[in-house]
Formats: sequence, C-alpha cells, structure tokens
Amino acid sequence: MRILVVNVNTTRAMTEGIAHAARQAASAGTEIIGLTPEFGAESCEGNVESYLAALGVMDAVLKYPGQFDAVIQAGYGEHGREGLQELLDVPVVDITEAGAALALLLGRRFSVVTTLDRTVPLIEDRLLLAGLDAHCVSVRASGMAVLELEENPDAAVAAIVEQAAEAVEQDRAETIVLGCGGMADLGEIIRRRCAVPVVDGVAAAVRLAESLVGLGLSTSKVRTYAPPRQKRLSGWPFGQSAAADAD
Amino acid sequence: MRILVVNVNTTRAMTEGIAHAARQAASAGTEIIGLTPEFGAESCEGNVESYLAALGVMDAVLKYPGQFDAVIQAGYGEHGREGLQELLDVPVVDITEAGAALALLLGRRFSVVTTLDRTVPLIEDRLLLAGLDAHCVSVRASGMAVLELEENPDAAVAAIVEQAAEAVEQDRAETIVLGCGGMADLGEIIRRRCAVPVVDGVAAAVRLAESLVGLGLSTSKVRTYAPPRQKRLSGWPFGQSAAADAD
Amino acid sequence: MRILVVNVNTTRAMTEGIAHAARQAASAGTEIIGLTPEFGAESCEGNVESYLAALGVMDAVLKYPGQFDAVIQAGYGEHGREGLQELLDVPVVDITEAGAALALLLGRRFSVVTTLDRTVPLIEDRLLLAGLDAHCVSVRASGMAVLELEENPDAAVAAIVEQAAEAVEQDRAETIVLGCGGMADLGEIIRRRCAVPVVDGVAAAVRLAESLVGLGLSTSKVRTYAPPRQKRLSGWPFGQSAAADAD
Amino acid sequence: MRILVVNVNTTRAMTEGIAHAARQAASAGTEIIGLTPEFGAESCEGNVESYLAALGVMDAVLKYPGQFDAVIQAGYGEHGREGLQELLDVPVVDITEAGAALALLLGRRFSVVTTLDRTVPLIEDRLLLAGLDAHCVSVRASGMAVLELEENPDAAVAAIVEQAAEAVEQDRAETIVLGCGGMADLGEIIRRRCAVPVVDGVAAAVRLAESLVGLGLSTSKVRTYAPPRQKRLSGWPFGQSAAADAD
Amino acid sequence: MRILVVNVNTTRAMTEGIAHAARQAASAGTEIIGLTPEFGAESCEGNVESYLAALGVMDAVLKYPGQFDAVIQAGYGEHGREGLQELLDVPVVDITEAGAALALLLGRRFSVVTTLDRTVPLIEDRLLLAGLDAHCVSVRASGMAVLELEENPDAAVAAIVEQAAEAVEQDRAETIVLGCGGMADLGEIIRRRCAVPVVDGVAAAVRLAESLVGLGLSTSKVRTYAPPRQKRLSGWPFGQSAAADAD
Amino acid sequence: MRILVVNVNTTRAMTEGIAHAARQAASAGTEIIGLTPEFGAESCEGNVESYLAALGVMDAVLKYPGQFDAVIQAGYGEHGREGLQELLDVPVVDITEAGAALALLLGRRFSVVTTLDRTVPLIEDRLLLAGLDAHCVSVRASGMAVLELEENPDAAVAAIVEQAAEAVEQDRAETIVLGCGGMADLGEIIRRRCAVPVVDGVAAAVRLAESLVGLGLSTSKVRTYAPPRQKRLSGWPFGQSAAADAD
Repeated sequence: MRILVVNVNTTRAMTEGIAHAARQAASAGTEIIGLTPEFGAESCEGNVESYLAALGVMDAVLKYPGQFDAVIQAGYGEHGREGLQELLDVPVVDITEAGAALALLLGRRFSVVTTLDRTVPLIEDRLLLAGLDAHCVSVRASGMAVLELEENPDAAVAAIVEQAAEAVEQDRAETIVLGCGGMADLGEIIRRRCAVPVVDGVAAAVRLAESLVGLGLSTSKVRTYAPPRQKRLSGWPFGQSAAADAD
Repeated sequence: MRILVVNVNTTRAMTEGIAHAARQAASAGTEIIGLTPEFGAESCEGNVESYLAALGVMDAVLKYPGQFDAVIQAGYGEHGREGLQELLDVPVVDITEAGAALALLLGRRFSVVTTLDRTVPLIEDRLLLAGLDAHCVSVRASGMAVLELEENPDAAVAAIVEQAAEAVEQDRAETIVLGCGGMADLGEIIRRRCAVPVVDGVAAAVRLAESLVGLGLSTSKVRTYAPPRQKRLSGWPFGQSAAADAD
Repeated sequence: MRILVVNVNTTRAMTEGIAHAARQAASAGTEIIGLTPEFGAESCEGNVESYLAALGVMDAVLKYPGQFDAVIQAGYGEHGREGLQELLDVPVVDITEAGAALALLLGRRFSVVTTLDRTVPLIEDRLLLAGLDAHCVSVRASGMAVLELEENPDAAVAAIVEQAAEAVEQDRAETIVLGCGGMADLGEIIRRRCAVPVVDGVAAAVRLAESLVGLGLSTSKVRTYAPPRQKRLSGWPFGQSAAADAD
Repeated sequence: MRILVVNVNTTRAMTEGIAHAARQAASAGTEIIGLTPEFGAESCEGNVESYLAALGVMDAVLKYPGQFDAVIQAGYGEHGREGLQELLDVPVVDITEAGAALALLLGRRFSVVTTLDRTVPLIEDRLLLAGLDAHCVSVRASGMAVLELEENPDAAVAAIVEQAAEAVEQDRAETIVLGCGGMADLGEIIRRRCAVPVVDGVAAAVRLAESLVGLGLSTSKVRTYAPPRQKRLSGWPFGQSAAADAD
Repeated sequence: MRILVVNVNTTRAMTEGIAHAARQAASAGTEIIGLTPEFGAESCEGNVESYLAALGVMDAVLKYPGQFDAVIQAGYGEHGREGLQELLDVPVVDITEAGAALALLLGRRFSVVTTLDRTVPLIEDRLLLAGLDAHCVSVRASGMAVLELEENPDAAVAAIVEQAAEAVEQDRAETIVLGCGGMADLGEIIRRRCAVPVVDGVAAAVRLAESLVGLGLSTSKVRTYAPPRQKRLSGWPFGQSAAADAD
Repeated sequence: MRILVVNVNTTRAMTEGIAHAARQAASAGTEIIGLTPEFGAESCEGNVESYLAALGVMDAVLKYPGQFDAVIQAGYGEHGREGLQELLDVPVVDITEAGAALALLLGRRFSVVTTLDRTVPLIEDRLLLAGLDAHCVSVRASGMAVLELEENPDAAVAAIVEQAAEAVEQDRAETIVLGCGGMADLGEIIRRRCAVPVVDGVAAAVRLAESLVGLGLSTSKVRTYAPPRQKRLSGWPFGQSAAADAD
C-alpha cells in the first residue's frame, strides 16, 4: 500500500519530518511518500497561507506520477481536504480530523495543543465542519510559531507541555491531540507529564488511511464529493488536467 | 465610496450581471467596481472550483491598482472570505453571509434557494462557520447549474420558484435568500408567488458594506484576521507582494 | 426616509441621547424621530420593566401621527420587537440584534458589554431567540446601572472598559458590542484601549434599517408576524385601534 | 394551599374552564382561584396579544387582595412568566413549561399540539428559553383558533387528534402535550386514539406548583429574578405599587 | 399511594437515609418503601458499579412482592432508568432527572454539586440523555466519596458548601441541585450560605412521582419503553420472570 | 495481536458470524477471539436486554483466561462500553462508535440502518454520548428483528436496502453504516444499489482496535475511566475479582 503524505507548506525539512513520523506509525508493507507543494508558504499560520496550501496540496497530488492508495493532508487546521476528496477516488484523510477521531475512542473529552493563537480558529473550524468538535473541550496555543519548534525546541517543549497540563487539569481533557505536523516527538514527554494518551495527527491519519484501504472503503461520490463537473478552468498550474484526471 | 465586487468565477458576463445588481442596490454616491479573477473556473459548483476562487479573488483584489473602501466576495457558498479579511484593512462582506444577516431581521426563519444539489453543503458550511445557520431551515437546490440560469431562464425560474414555494410551505421559511450571484432578477417573481421577502445576497452585501464603511467599522485584527505574518511565499501570482501589502 | 427611534424607558434625556447617536450614524437624507413611551419605567433593568417597555414602545409607535419608513426599538435586551413586527408593515430593527448582526461581519467572535448583572440574561435570551448567539462568547456586566452612566461617567467608563478588555483577552472576543442605549460615546475609548472594533447597537440599527428600506425589504407576514387577528381588546391605551391600524 | 391560576385572556368562560381543569388536577386541600386579567385580548394568538397578557397577568396577580402560595400562568406559549417571578416570592409555574417538564419523564420525545399555526413560534420560543426544547420533536397546529374550540368542538377535536396521531407516527413523539389552556377535555380522546400519555399543561402546572410549595421551594432571587429595583414607574395600572409590593 | 424508592448500592444504612428523606418529602397518604439491591457495590462511583446498579435495581423491583404505584431510582447519575421503564407500567422517576426538572422552574440556570470528580461525567451524561442539560451550567465535585459523607460529615459539608458557593458566584447558577442520595441534610446549610433554592433529588422525585400518579400518567409504551419482547434470557437472577412480568 | 470480539447476546451462532466478519476485516497477524456472554438475552433489542449485555460482556472479558491486546464490544447501540474501559488497560472499541468514526471520513453525512424501530433510540443515544452524532442524519429501522436476519434473509435484505436507499435520497446521507452485528454480508448489496460506501461496525472496530494497539494508545485513566475504586461488591458473577483485576 502506498500513501501520499502531503505537507501543506514548502519547507522540505518539515516534509521529511512528517514523512518520518508517518513511517514510524505505518504498518509493515505500507510505503509512505512525502510530497511538498511547489508553491505556497514556508509555514501555514493563517487563512491566506492555508488557502494557498489547499491549492498547493491538490497540485502536488495531481502531479504525482505514480499510483497510490490513499492521501494524507498533513497540515493541522488547513483548508483543502474537501477538494482532494472531489478530485480523487482513493481515501483522503486530514490529520486534524484523524487525531480527533482516534481521541474520541480514548477518553471522554480531548484537547488540541497547537502553535500560535491565530491558528486556534482554523482548527476549531475544521473540527466543527467535520462533526468532530462535540468532545473537544479546548484548542490551546503554546504561542510558539511552527518554525520555532525546530529553532528553539526546549522552550517549545516547555510551552506545549504546560498547555497540555492545563488542558487536563482545567479543561478536563482526558486525551491530548498534538495540533501541529511538526510536534510528533513531543508525545512521549506530554504522556509522561500528564499521564494521558497523546495522539499525533500524522500517526493517526496513517493508521486510518490504512484501515480504509484495508476495508475497501473510499470517499462517497454521491453528492458533496462528486468529481468536479467538466468545465473550463483557466490560468492555473493544474488547469484542465485536474478536471480531466477526475473523470 | 468605492466598493469592489469580486466575482468568484472567470465568466465576465456574470461579473457584469453581478456589478449591475450591485449598482441597483447601492446608495447614491457609491461606486461599484466589478472584478473578475484572472484564473479559476468558469463557474463554481464544488470545492475544487471554490478553493480556486478563494485564491483568484484574493489575487484580483491585491492587483487592483486603485483605492477602495470595501470588498464584496460575490460567490454563494465559496471559500475565501477569511483570507481577504486577513489581507485587507477595509471591510469584507461575503454575499452568503450578507443575505443571511438581513434575512434574520425580516422573518423568524429563512431558506436559501440555490442551483445544484452539490452546492448545498458549501452553503450550509459557510453559514455554520459564520454563526448564521441557527434560523436557516433549509438550503434547497433547484437542480439548475449556474450557467443554465442564463441559457434556459424560463426553466430555471420555474424550478427555483418551486423550491422557494416549498421552503415556505414545508420548511416554514418566512424569508427566501437567493443563493446564487446570478439570481438577482428572480426576486420579484418569487416575492409575488410566495408573498415573502426575498433577499439577494449581492444587494444585501452592498448595503452592509456601505453600513460598515459609513460607521467607520472594519475587520478586527486582534487574532483570527490579523495580517499574515512576514514569511516566504513561493510560486504564487501575488507572491511576496501579498504579505508586503498586508503590512 | 424617516426612522422612528423609540426609547424603552420614560427618561426623555435618554431618548435625546439615543436620537443624537442615531443621527450621528444616519446617512444624509435620513430623518430620525426620537419617541419616548408615555408609560413605563425610568430605566429598564429587569423583566417587569422590560415587559412594560414592550407595550410602551408599541403604544408610542401606534400613536405617532406621521408617516415613517422604519422603526428602531432602542433598548438593549428588551422584550417587544416581535409585537412591533406584527403591528407594522415597515421594517423593525432591535438594537440588540442589530449590534450582533454587524459584529458577525467584523470578527470571529464578539462580546456584549452591558450595565447590570441582572440584564445579562435578558440580552442572552434575545440573542438566542434571534439566532444571533452562536458567535457571542460572553455578555459581561460592568455593574453600573443605566442611570449611573450619566451620573458618574468616569467610574462607568472605567468599569465598562475593563470588562471589554477582559472579553478580548479572556473570552477571545474580537469585537465588542455596546450593550446599552446610553453607551454610544464609549466606543472610541474602548476601541483605543482594546484595539478592536466597537459596535454601538443604535448606530448599527440605523444603518440596517436604512438598508432594508433602501432595498424595499420589510417583515415577512406569512406566519409569525402576520397582523394581529381581528378581536376584541379591552382596557388598553391603544385598544381596538391597534388591530384596526394593522389591517 | 391556595394557588392562583391566571388566564391570559379576558374571556371569563375560559378562566372558568381552566380553573375547573385545575381543580380536577389538584390534590385534596388545594384551593384554586381563577383570575381573569382586567385588560387584554379575548384570546391570545400572537405577540401583541401575548405581550398584553404578560402585563395583564401581572396586574391581576398584584391586585389580588388575598394570600396565595403559588401562581400559575395559564396561557400556552405566552410571554410574562419571568416578570411574575421577579415580582413574587411564591413559586410561579407556566403551563407551557409544566407540560414539557412532565412529558420529559414519560417518554423519550414529546410533541405539543396547539391551535393556530401562528402560535407555534411562540411555544417553540418559550420551550427554548426554558431549556425544555431538546426532546420536543414538534409543535403542531390544528388550524383551529382558540375560540373555535368552544364553538365547533367536533371539528376541533378531529383536527387536533389528527395532529397528535401524526406527531406519534411521523415525528416519533411518545408523549403528547396539549398546547392550549382550553384543550383539557381532549386528553382522553387522544389517549385512546394514539395510545400515548397526554399531558395537559394546566394539570401539570397545578401538581408542580403543589410540589414546589410542599418542598418549601420558590424562585431564586440571586440574579435573573431578583425583585425589581426601586424606580419610578409612570402611567401604569399597577404603577409604583408593583415595586412597592416587591420589596 | 405506595412508592418504591430503590437505592442503587447495597449499603442498607443509605437505603434507610434515602427512605427517610423520601418520607420527609412525601405528601400525607404516600407510603414510601425503601429497597436495597441484593447484589452490587457498597457505593456507586463509576460505570462498572453503575451498570451493576442498573441490574440490581431492576432485580429488586421485580422481586418486590407487593403492589406499588411508582418507582424512584435513587442514585445520582446511575444507569438503568430506561430498563425500569420498559419493565413497569407504573411511572419511574430518576432522582438525577427529578432534581433537574424542578430546578428548571426555580431559576434560570442550575448547578449540580456531587461527590467525586469521576461521577461528574455520569451525571452530565444522564442529564444530556434526558434532555435536561441545557440550563445546567456545571456539575461540580466536592472530592468527598459517598461513604465519607457519613464518616466525616463536617469536612464533607464544608467541601460541598464551597462548591455550591462557587457554582453561584462563578458559574452563575441560580439554583443548586444536590447530586447525591446521601446529601439531603445539607440543603438547609447551602440555602443559608448561598441564598439560593436547593433541590434534593430524592425529595423532587417523590413529589414528581406523586404528581404523575395523581394525574393518571405513566410511561409511554409506544416505542422506546415498550415491554421487552418475549425471548430467552439465561443465567440471570430475574431471568425469564422479568419478561413474563412485563407482558 | 489478539483482539477479543464480544457478542452482546447469548446466541453462539451470532458470535461465530461476528467473529467471521472480524477475521475478514483483520490484518494479517491479528488473532480474533469471539466471546459469548454466559448470561443475557438471545438477542438485544431494548434497554433491559442491553443492560444485561453490559454486565454479560464485562463478565465474559474478565473471565477470559488468556492475554489480549484489545476488546471489541460487538453490539449495535448497547450499553456497557464505559464499564469495560474502566476495567481494562487495553483499548476498548464499540462497534456503534467505530462505524460512525470511519463514516465521518468517507462522506459529509451518514445514516445508520438497523433492525427494529425500538433500537433506534439506543443507537441515537450511544452516538450522542460518544460525540459522534453531529453528522448522523438518521437512524433508520428496517422493521426486521435481529433473529429474523438469519431466518428470513431475503425479506431482511430487501427491507434494509430500501431503508438505505431512502437514507441516501431523502436524508441526504452519503455513507451508510450497518447498524447491527449480523448485517455484515449486506454491505455489498447496499453498495451496489445505492452507490455509496457502506461501513460495517465490526470491520471498522477491528481496524480501529488494530490502529490503537499499533500506535501504543489506550484508554485514558485520569478521570472518567479510572479503574474502579476498591470496594465491596456482593452477589455478582465476577464479584471482587473484577475490582481486583482492575488494580
């Protein structure tokens, strides 16, 4: 089974980190291909960058020359998953939703811990649209930007662990979801500190994608995610080919 | 006061129709500038096209060389309004939300009548995210595609009026919102048939934009819609200039 | 265009203040007529007084001898708007709802800052019934009574600004709505302190009323707000004449 | 124990019918006093009449010269209960809420069957504000006006029973609440036809009022229903005396 | 009238305390029979014990040899009420729900104060399933286990009163519901300290059960609570006889 | 990896069918052990039987002598999953919740098709408590009892497929979840008829359990699902040993 794991920003080092986390989580026999969009932002921390990512991810997947069995959109709180579901016949799993879906099975309520305050609304909105918000008691921001996670890891770790602890104690979360593609290594630290399960969205998405493929399940095409209608697209990197591929 | 009314598709005739409707609704002294995205789909009826529109609209606004006081995103149920709000200091009004906001003042419950079944989820999601869904009792599709509205106007009118009538009788709607940028002319027909107020999103957006400008109000910049952070964007029509403009 | 702005209490100085705020907000060519109920309480801070206001406002409007194009009910959180909508053919705008409707367009979440703790439930209930509560993260009370706003303006300002600041910082509000007819002057102070848009309900209502009139829209009469049925009323100031006017 | 059962309209025959139903439901030792407002409408079927009723009921209770242990507001879907709770130290029970509160104990979901279509929104709003709407699957109107219940009882019975049957079969209601003060006699007919429990709001309110009195419970006075503040009221039947009584 | 009040644990002293509280609350002429399950836990503070209680209570009721008019399940937050409703023709009242149902009539919002933190989710879930959660602003735990209430009453009282006070001040509760069968004596203390009504679930349940019996109302049998279908049960104390009794 | 798949009724043939379905869905290397409760009902179609199942399943798992890595509760809409989570350190997956969790990834809205009308409320309540109800547009009953599925398979298939088709067409479901442990073979028939993905709860649960085990995740023990407190249990099959095992 081959799964495309698509980063939402253009920073290749982050793609590699995400692909590494995905491979750690994958079953034997699953091949993980990391893709980086050709255009977009070096990190996604707002709607403009997220809308860019939506297109960048679709573009990267459509240009991928090989076969694949599932696609993971590896950005926390980003736009775009619905577009991939329209374009593709294989299952599409968003890491924001994947983390939440598994968290629901592990404790009564969960919290998401993410980077900047301004990404909180994006995550809340994705969970709301996915019908996965009812048991999410908080989305908390550590105040560390995406790129700071790599630049200043100690401070980032401390800030994130503190938010996780407050989520458990004050918000009554029983499970923590790591709300950022670059946070996978923090799981163990939070788990030790807070004594709760910690779900990494990338790992969850890999296992969920494998599950769907294994069960022969893919996106419903009857209404919302029907293939795009045949029509004239202009001026876009993947232009007509997108619609053509979708038929 | 100058308001940019930005079409979400690349069909210039529709831009003209929208701009015409906007001018009909505008107060004396308001100048309406219709903009057409340089890239995108000839009509928007799904998520892929809608995500393209999100970028196409941002691109068109950022390239507009003149001054302006407000921007209207003139696509029913499309992605992208949040991005515009990040990029701009002037008020941004989405016609989906504008129609709903005025409908709340006119009757206890409202219904949206739109084109294709597949656009219903997009509209429902926008209203949900905007906090304007509580009194929306239904989003009904006439089954007519956007471009059919112009090609076969009689059949389109009949199908849409029928849905409006059912919304009033079966769903207990007391107000009808026209859920498509190209439907403005239908208002009078529905009003006569159903004896309820009919709100056109474009007209509503024009008046709401004028209201915000008149009151000196614009988008809050404290969190969700703060300007994009300074960062490297690559491979994009409006590239660095977007972030630059936003500062 | 002539708009009646009806105070909910019997204090004429407050009517004048409200009418002044309304004129400041109105477009050129809009005439604002301030009305004071003939009976009721000197200020409204609870349900008994609010139910009195509901009738006092209807009575004042029905006795107004001239023509008018719209009515604004200028009490924050008061009962009665639905009755006016039944009685009148022109649009009716409640300032509680108007402030919220515009706030939805300006930021992701809003808070209302009002006077006494006991008026908080009234405001929450009005927003709930109007379908405008989903994005209201808090209704906060400054602890200052309505009449204290004029008697002790410095303390009132300080208390209100503090609540606004807490709403932005703790409740994650991105917009503040002034929850009292007499607070209009505070907007600029809060705006400077909190760096968020501040919506005054009276100003919002004036622009929304103008918008509805300008678009030829008024209350739906198909069900909830159909004119009162012909029946015998007894012992009431506007008695039979109310039903008569409504036909 | 003496309970005031206050009709919301000025039709004394209806007061007598309600008082009779209340006496049928009351425990031994409970005295039922029926009160009719001195002003208001001959029947309540809309917001104007309902706001009149809110004041008429308060006025009637405040003028009642004797002692009493609880008050029942006997109008289905009417405004005003919150005002009575502010004014009085004894428990206040609204029949709309009482019927729903008992229905929750008898089946998983309930429906309300009422008179005219235009009263449906009033009932829905009362249940929503009371926190009793979650298990209400429908409020259905028979199309018979309040006064027709007495004028044309056979047709009224048939229309109401039909709605009850549809509520059970189509809306999956398991309990029916009679949504009108004058419907008490219909319970047995619906019970036989639909084989479900039928709750009459007046009867429910009597038993709930007795329960509260028996347990020494009454309205909380800490915030929402604190007594009205001392202030100048003008031009009102119960004028200053209302505030005076409340202290 | 004879009401069975069934304890959910096997501690007979608690059954006696509950029965005593029930008798204090009952009307003249109501006979209270306290029942203790033959199997189960000495106190219920979690799901395993609560599921045991569900069966233990059903078993105790089915084995009770005499006639009875209503059953009260006297455990706060426990599973099982739905099963009793299937098995019995007489009304069944759960004390969790009874306390909430009366609290809705006494103040705008209520809080439940209970024992251990781990029982909070059980209570929240019962209120949610019963449609009684909308006005419940918090379920607060004192940290005292059920059995500690008797062992260390002073500390228990102090801890519980503190939570009640915080519920009123911080959560804006206007009524307190005692969330534990053994807390009935605390009511007066909290009432004095917090100046709000305090509802004891056992007392509320007794009066509600009396009300239903008095009005001739019992559980709807059309769908959810229809008698169990005839089928083979094996290995259970009340085995076939349960189904047999239910016919 | 060894997964216990526990039937909720005492019919061994159904356990075998469920275990067979689980093995079909399992990855290579996963061993499926089917368990049948020692006591309970021959099929579960109501609350009494479901509460019996809750205990029967816990009892069967606690008595299982070997090691295991996860437990699946294989009853649609049954009580009890929370108890297993308290008792066990390994992950517990309920098939009702598993089917819904995967359905959320496959289409915008889903419907559950189940057996009898009376099981609909049980399923709705489980989804509500699990936070998985937001995108469930309907739970539809075919009217066929559990045991009829095997006795009269052709009629059962026809009835179920019809409900699935109506769910897609009328309720706008885009995915169907099979709401019964014995329905696994129907998936392909519905898929062909309705052209939507069909999720079998047992298969979904197997893959989700494998995913959790593979990722080293299990139930949070901080609050709701903490091990039962040490206390005296009496008269129960697994008696003290349950608590003992849990430490």
